[in-house]
Amino acid sequence: MKIYGDSISGNCLKVKWVADSLGLPYNWIETSVLTAETRTAQFLAMNPAGQVPLVVLGDGRPLAQSNAIILHLAEGSGLIPADAYDRAKMLEWMFWEQYSHEPYVAVARFQVRYLGKPADELEARIVERGRAALQRLEDALVASAFLVGGALSLADVALVVYTRVAPEGGFDLTDYPRVRAWIVRVEQALDITGR
Amino acid sequence: MKIYGDSISGNCLKVKWVADSLGLPYNWIETSVLTAETRTAQFLAMNPAGQVPLVVLGDGRPLAQSNAIILHLAEGSGLIPADAYDRAKMLEWMFWEQYSHEPYVAVARFQVRYLGKPADELEARIVERGRAALQRLEDALVASAFLVGGALSLADVALVVYTRVAPEGGFDLTDYPRVRAWIVRVEQALDITGR
Repeated sequence: MKIYGDSISGNCLKVKWVADSLGLPYNWIETSVLTAETRTAQFLAMNPAGQVPLVVLGDGRPLAQSNAIILHLAEGSGLIPADAYDRAKMLEWMFWEQYSHEPYVAVARFQVRYLGKPADELEARIVERGRAALQRLEDALVASAFLVGGALSLADVALVVYTRVAPEGGFDLTDYPRVRAWIVRVEQALDITGR
Repeated sequence: MKIYGDSISGNCLKVKWVADSLGLPYNWIETSVLTAETRTAQFLAMNPAGQVPLVVLGDGRPLAQSNAIILHLAEGSGLIPADAYDRAKMLEWMFWEQYSHEPYVAVARFQVRYLGKPADELEARIVERGRAALQRLEDALVASAFLVGGALSLADVALVVYTRVAPEGGFDLTDYPRVRAWIVRVEQALDITGR
């Protein structure tokens, strides 16, 4: 399997960390978003959406969208709950991540850290919705050590990648103590502490 | 099963049409987004994200996020491909829908039809990205009658709901003839023509 990914992208790291966690071999092909390597004719032929991560499976077939990729790679593993309702809740978190968390928490971090925008010049809507997303995680973690069913699942992987670097976008995680403790737990479970 | 939904929302209609297609009984509880019925304390206790659709299953447990709900309801049915790669491609389309299609095609339609904004005053970014999403569907439908594996799947359901009403947001579908033909096919397959 080939993974086309940009190491600065949490969406790409989801795929790397799930593959590592499951012991799946792969070749990582560093593909820069900042220099538009995802917009070349060669790349667009593999993924017309022009986005990383993209995996090319052993048989040559491509697959895009970080959460679709990790669901495929982890099928049948302990990262996907066996219980149908827990599995559905995991998917609920994963769709919520792409719609209500990533467009704010990840976008703020990209603009501040990689485009050099001062955090206090971020669009108010991005900051407000990013905080609302972090608060929702904080509230969810009152009841449970992980997001679904009390054990690590792809919901935690999908949500930790940008939450752990939220301070790079100006979000202060001291306001979210349960989120901070959960980040440590997920990092330990994935063996990515400090990476 | 109870479905809390707003009939003007394509995301809510996904759930209704999948339930109808599978012959699943439900009570539809009309819940208006425009009058903030999704923001009452009672509703937020069921879905802290404050969004419809929300289903409350027979055993009282809630489930949110349109695509997570239809994946749960359709588990084991013909709306989910049996082949693992086709299933992954279906998920790729469903995550792409929420990230790269709905925030433009559905948002334009909401602003124009329900908030009364003139289509030529929409944010340029919304129009450009909406057109790019429609073009990507047009290109994908060169090879196949449906989005995945040549047969109706949840990918088609997820993408048809806002594509079929894209003209209400100022998008001219005459530029996308394959998309128009696909809409007719999906509507016929779901028996929702004219609804």
